[in-house]
Amino acid sequence: MEEKVIGYRREFHLYAESGWKEFRTTSRIIEILEGLGLEVKYGKEVIHIPMVMGRDAEQEISNHIERGIRQGGNSKFIEKMEGYTGAVGILKTGRPGPVIAIRFDIDANDVIERKDLEHRPTKEGFASVNEGMMHACGHDGHTAMGLGLAELLIKEKKNLTGTIKLIFQPAEEGVRGARAMVGKGLLEDVDYFLAGHLGFNLQTGFIAPKTTGFLSTTKMDAYFYGKGSHASNAPEEGKNSLLAAATAVLNIHAISPHSKGITRVNVGVMQGGIGRNVIPPAATLKIETRGETPELNDYMYDKVAGILNCAAKMYGNNVSMKKEGEALAADCDEELVDIVKEVALENKERITGVINEKYLGGSEDATFMMKSVQERGGLATYIFFGAETKAAHHNEGFDFDEAVLMKGICLYKDVILKIAGR
Amino acid sequence: MEEKVIGYRREFHLYAESGWKEFRTTSRIIEILEGLGLEVKYGKEVIHIPMVMGRDAEQEISNHIERGIRQGGNSKFIEKMEGYTGAVGILKTGRPGPVIAIRFDIDANDVIERKDLEHRPTKEGFASVNEGMMHACGHDGHTAMGLGLAELLIKEKKNLTGTIKLIFQPAEEGVRGARAMVGKGLLEDVDYFLAGHLGFNLQTGFIAPKTTGFLSTTKMDAYFYGKGSHASNAPEEGKNSLLAAATAVLNIHAISPHSKGITRVNVGVMQGGIGRNVIPPAATLKIETRGETPELNDYMYDKVAGILNCAAKMYGNNVSMKKEGEALAADCDEELVDIVKEVALENKERITGVINEKYLGGSEDATFMMKSVQERGGLATYIFFGAETKAAHHNEGFDFDEAVLMKGICLYKDVILKIAGR
Amino acid sequence: MEEKVIGYRREFHLYAESGWKEFRTTSRIIEILEGLGLEVKYGKEVIHIPMVMGRDAEQEISNHIERGIRQGGNSKFIEKMEGYTGAVGILKTGRPGPVIAIRFDIDANDVIERKDLEHRPTKEGFASVNEGMMHACGHDGHTAMGLGLAELLIKEKKNLTGTIKLIFQPAEEGVRGARAMVGKGLLEDVDYFLAGHLGFNLQTGFIAPKTTGFLSTTKMDAYFYGKGSHASNAPEEGKNSLLAAATAVLNIHAISPHSKGITRVNVGVMQGGIGRNVIPPAATLKIETRGETPELNDYMYDKVAGILNCAAKMYGNNVSMKKEGEALAADCDEELVDIVKEVALENKERITGVINEKYLGGSEDATFMMKSVQERGGLATYIFFGAETKAAHHNEGFDFDEAVLMKGICLYKDVILKIAGR
Amino acid sequence: MEEKVIGYRREFHLYAESGWKEFRTTSRIIEILEGLGLEVKYGKEVIHIPMVMGRDAEQEISNHIERGIRQGGNSKFIEKMEGYTGAVGILKTGRPGPVIAIRFDIDANDVIERKDLEHRPTKEGFASVNEGMMHACGHDGHTAMGLGLAELLIKEKKNLTGTIKLIFQPAEEGVRGARAMVGKGLLEDVDYFLAGHLGFNLQTGFIAPKTTGFLSTTKMDAYFYGKGSHASNAPEEGKNSLLAAATAVLNIHAISPHSKGITRVNVGVMQGGIGRNVIPPAATLKIETRGETPELNDYMYDKVAGILNCAAKMYGNNVSMKKEGEALAADCDEELVDIVKEVALENKERITGVINEKYLGGSEDATFMMKSVQERGGLATYIFFGAETKAAHHNEGFDFDEAVLMKGICLYKDVILKIAGR
Repeated sequence: MEEKVIGYRREFHLYAESGWKEFRTTSRIIEILEGLGLEVKYGKEVIHIPMVMGRDAEQEISNHIERGIRQGGNSKFIEKMEGYTGAVGILKTGRPGPVIAIRFDIDANDVIERKDLEHRPTKEGFASVNEGMMHACGHDGHTAMGLGLAELLIKEKKNLTGTIKLIFQPAEEGVRGARAMVGKGLLEDVDYFLAGHLGFNLQTGFIAPKTTGFLSTTKMDAYFYGKGSHASNAPEEGKNSLLAAATAVLNIHAISPHSKGITRVNVGVMQGGIGRNVIPPAATLKIETRGETPELNDYMYDKVAGILNCAAKMYGNNVSMKKEGEALAADCDEELVDIVKEVALENKERITGVINEKYLGGSEDATFMMKSVQERGGLATYIFFGAETKAAHHNEGFDFDEAVLMKGICLYKDVILKIAGR
Repeated sequence: MEEKVIGYRREFHLYAESGWKEFRTTSRIIEILEGLGLEVKYGKEVIHIPMVMGRDAEQEISNHIERGIRQGGNSKFIEKMEGYTGAVGILKTGRPGPVIAIRFDIDANDVIERKDLEHRPTKEGFASVNEGMMHACGHDGHTAMGLGLAELLIKEKKNLTGTIKLIFQPAEEGVRGARAMVGKGLLEDVDYFLAGHLGFNLQTGFIAPKTTGFLSTTKMDAYFYGKGSHASNAPEEGKNSLLAAATAVLNIHAISPHSKGITRVNVGVMQGGIGRNVIPPAATLKIETRGETPELNDYMYDKVAGILNCAAKMYGNNVSMKKEGEALAADCDEELVDIVKEVALENKERITGVINEKYLGGSEDATFMMKSVQERGGLATYIFFGAETKAAHHNEGFDFDEAVLMKGICLYKDVILKIAGR
Repeated sequence: MEEKVIGYRREFHLYAESGWKEFRTTSRIIEILEGLGLEVKYGKEVIHIPMVMGRDAEQEISNHIERGIRQGGNSKFIEKMEGYTGAVGILKTGRPGPVIAIRFDIDANDVIERKDLEHRPTKEGFASVNEGMMHACGHDGHTAMGLGLAELLIKEKKNLTGTIKLIFQPAEEGVRGARAMVGKGLLEDVDYFLAGHLGFNLQTGFIAPKTTGFLSTTKMDAYFYGKGSHASNAPEEGKNSLLAAATAVLNIHAISPHSKGITRVNVGVMQGGIGRNVIPPAATLKIETRGETPELNDYMYDKVAGILNCAAKMYGNNVSMKKEGEALAADCDEELVDIVKEVALENKERITGVINEKYLGGSEDATFMMKSVQERGGLATYIFFGAETKAAHHNEGFDFDEAVLMKGICLYKDVILKIAGR
Repeated sequence: MEEKVIGYRREFHLYAESGWKEFRTTSRIIEILEGLGLEVKYGKEVIHIPMVMGRDAEQEISNHIERGIRQGGNSKFIEKMEGYTGAVGILKTGRPGPVIAIRFDIDANDVIERKDLEHRPTKEGFASVNEGMMHACGHDGHTAMGLGLAELLIKEKKNLTGTIKLIFQPAEEGVRGARAMVGKGLLEDVDYFLAGHLGFNLQTGFIAPKTTGFLSTTKMDAYFYGKGSHASNAPEEGKNSLLAAATAVLNIHAISPHSKGITRVNVGVMQGGIGRNVIPPAATLKIETRGETPELNDYMYDKVAGILNCAAKMYGNNVSMKKEGEALAADCDEELVDIVKEVALENKERITGVINEKYLGGSEDATFMMKSVQERGGLATYIFFGAETKAAHHNEGFDFDEAVLMKGICLYKDVILKIAGR
């Protein structure tokens, strides 16, 4: 079975698709899950469209649908997705018992993969064929784990109670996809929620049953609209979007720190102007704020919004903001952490070490799912699965030790058995 | 008579008083004019108070009133001035004829005068006794010319028709005083208006009957009001006035040039903050705008106001603006220019050269008087009287060739005779 | 003949090629000039490569060479151009006499042409087939005039003395091409130099034999190189190029005006950063400076360079600048202006009005050629040819009254006959 | 004795003197300590002059020396201080034993004291007679505690071993004075070091034997030197210090946060320019940086210095920086904390409550003394003495519950007895 799971991982790596464009990927997930006998919901059935963030324009989406089909995606499934990616496999045991959900993220990064032969995916022929998209964060592995877990659970079905939902989430990169799945109500009946990540400087064989340091974050784009004019003949007629945006950038980075905790802000990208001799009539900023708590993130977000408005007005510009991603702060539930830890310690063969917790210091939109479950009295945790990696996450040379796959699958299975075994 | 006029000049130099504080100066002007038999109006009679700009707080004014009296000012006159400086001497011939007005500015600069003996005023004992106030622009000479002219006109009274007004204006520096005299209606019956300036790199004996390049200007102060807070313990509670003001300063200097002509802006002074470890709760800017035309000055002024408002709002500050001075663009009337030129050319003895026009490239609030006269169909011009100077105008070592005084007095007298002689 | 010339214009319009990429255009010019019997130099023979500015990377050039050939360009000529566009047709009369040069610019703009049927080029089938390139400034007309003039001059050859050079210059847009032709020595023996432009709000039939208001200009790109880092986990390790560039932009626009005359600066385009959550490791600015005199342009250029360096250093960035275009200020020679004017007035049939001079208030790199000729004692002028236009120059809907073509050709011919006729 | 100590406190409050100007204060300390029989060193004997920070110019110091004498300071002692304030009283028991040092800070704040009768110092006649200087932080109380403690220790001398140093430090406000005392070697033989502060929201009767959250800090002034010029006639000749400083201010506040811990920066005061119509030739900034560790403070300081240099250079300015204060991060030694705690708990009568530790979140230059002692193997702690206060520290209405004085004195005495009792 390990061979099959590694095969899945390499197939997804080969046909890497980035957020909201995982058409081939989603269709393969559906095929496999249906093949195993799970009930599968997907596309518009699992995505609450008004909450979708950071999705490309329809034309671009269409191009990727076509490519997905061209690259072997199941056209029937893709058609029924109605433009939206993501799937949920549901295993109903028919016996009363808890509802357990596990989240697997399926999207690739906007990274151009290394092409030299020292890079294993190149050497062994599974490097991405989609230029500019690459599984550089290990979500190919996460997806493969989800499919492997489905197969094991089917085998164990007779020993299980309750319901198990395997959630294959699109667009985790940029924290764009989880909220729209929560918005669809998928987590409303869930008692136990698990998610996890491989890699991150943890040795293969080690796991951390608990994660801290989820930063609340908002991703947003700002669009300045001014007015062009000939820079030499009529400069006074222009409404300079570049000066407005440059003023905003400086002042955004000068937002005061907060005595209540860590805050962050970054203007990561700025583009403005159309020609050397034209007063720039438009500019775009890509911004993110973060905070140790949602309140601190809100503090930063409100300051950014205020600065954008005033800088725009200063130059007679209009400015509009668009939210492109969002994640929450979150805490893991000790009760569930303890279950995972106990299971891990029982399996000395596969799990060689357990560290109590891992500090993330970053953002994850699984936090929306965690919160949704916790608000209704359920329990949630986020697990780290050790896996040696080549290069850092998001780097063009990323690759990971595939031994993690079966370790993760079995841990998930054992935790489910611990919670919902007969 | 030259000796007497030089005596006046040196007396005013000795007791230099800056704008709106010329109490001793004004009282001496009244004394001399009344002594000659002119009707004299002064203080509140000649100043329209709502149009007064850039005058100190009452306490400061009171201090200067006291000092003026202490330094030999006529306390009766000073009392009747009711806190406002400036005087107008009126010579009515009793015969029908034109109304001619001549403007003399009487205020000193906020400059600390040189104290070494190479500086003639020090050496000859008429350097300013008022530390931080100095006649460094020649208005002491202008005032002396007005008084000498009064004496000559009284002598020529029988040869004159109409009415002659000698206007002794306070607070020309910073272009603060003229508008309030115009507002009092002093120019409303005037047919011919003359004003002039000595020095400015023109040799003694030369005159220019016409001036160009008056820039329209506005002087204003901006006050930012934010909120202080401990910079380390609660920085997020502050509303940083210094950041607001710094943002304004940069963007004010980045205002686009205008295709229709020359514009200028300067933030000359900035002060903000109260302590090193306190988020700055307030800041002040001293600003001026200029333009080749009033429209261009308005363009700059409006941009400045907009930037101040937006920069303040960006940091949760309030901002208020206060106009502290104003001058207009203006053109000299060729008809009157020609009269002055003709008179100058006729007096080869005193006037050794005439240049057609002088470009100022600066601002003068006599322009308010010129406009007022011209709008009612009268004629106006602004004359430059050559006078060699030591050091540049406004410099601590400024002094001028006093030979200009009688040359100017006689030219004014001859122009008046040409216009209104019997 | 008018039909033929209009045909040329429309052909060039159809196959519009922008600066340094005029391969098809140049090959057609060579074909026609050689067909008429002129000696023709082109490509590397007429371009001094170290002085080339603003040319694309070789790969891009190669693509355009291929396209030029695909669109009917003469592959033999194109090959011999060795990657560089531009041509000079030389007519040697064999008789002693002056050397006269006329400059025609041949490049299109980076503009997407209107596609609706109200736009004549669309309606009559000669709108650009090269998306994003369009003759929106009338250089298609200039090129056609040069070819028509060549034909007329061949006919008049027996009546002429000396030598006539018809210079077909690439890359006038962005003022990139003239300097490299001057650097090749093409103007070194020239006694009379003429250039001209059609359109610009002057009615068809009118001409201006003299142009004023050439602004000296420099076009440059600035590249900031900093260092990326994760914006949340290790912001202190980044060297933020976007903050460096934003600081530069604000301060560049705050460069003080100059008392000696008009100056301009514009940062027309800014691009920076690679991802929302990465400290921006690089940024690019497209900048231009202008001045009423070369000294004023130098003043602006030096200030810009200083600000770029300091802003880069402030954020630990390196910055490099690359000149992408340049033009000089220039004056037309009255002696030659008078000849053009005289000729124009003699031809009442074609030329219905002469205005003394036209103020450009912009930049033209024909000024390099004018200066080169004038420095050696030759005479130069720049003529405006009236032509009604649809939409402003550089606009997507630009088109012009083709009646200007024969009027211009004949005026050039008559001026040449006046100067160098037997 | 309480009466006497309260008397001292009120006397110091009445004649409040701010940092490096505590001439009368120091002379009284010397008088009293010598009167008790202690050996006293003072002035230049206890201050290492090259390490003095934030001291006024000599003329200003002279004025305060004169005032100190005029207000009853002992002129003999003041003379021998040679311009430097501060004193150390040394009690040698003659018996072998530890060296214990206690630091008392003696300077007032630059605050204008409330004058209304609701303010007890006004009502009871001990409000500051020195306008603009006020004991608004309680150092008057600290000084009184030091003198009371001296008296108690003399009484207990026979029960003590070793040596006790009572250090009366000038200029703690702005963290300016401690380093120069350490530099003189006063702490080099010290085994136990104590310092403390009264007030800070802790109820009278409570103490905290341990303090955390000392932020490393640097206080500095920056002086920009540019060049003035007439803002309208010759703006290009100026070197604008205000634009340089404004650029620095914005970018200083935009310094990236650091992943290793808390950092702070504040530009608390900015002053620049001399006149509305003059390009500003100079500007001053008052700045402070802070960091959770010295490394983080250094990170901020280095960034600030770099920005100042680049902003100055951008406008052709020179900039010089002057350190005006400095404090370190520090940790209290648990061993000594436990001793203080034990003593406090033993004295239920005076000390009604002990809290384990107090978080400062600010800066104190006693940290220099703590570090000096700790580096040589000694122990140090910093105690908080509860005292109800009117208004916050540094506020014009500050006053405190004088009951703290005897409580503090007795605690110090008991700790000394515990450590060095026979």
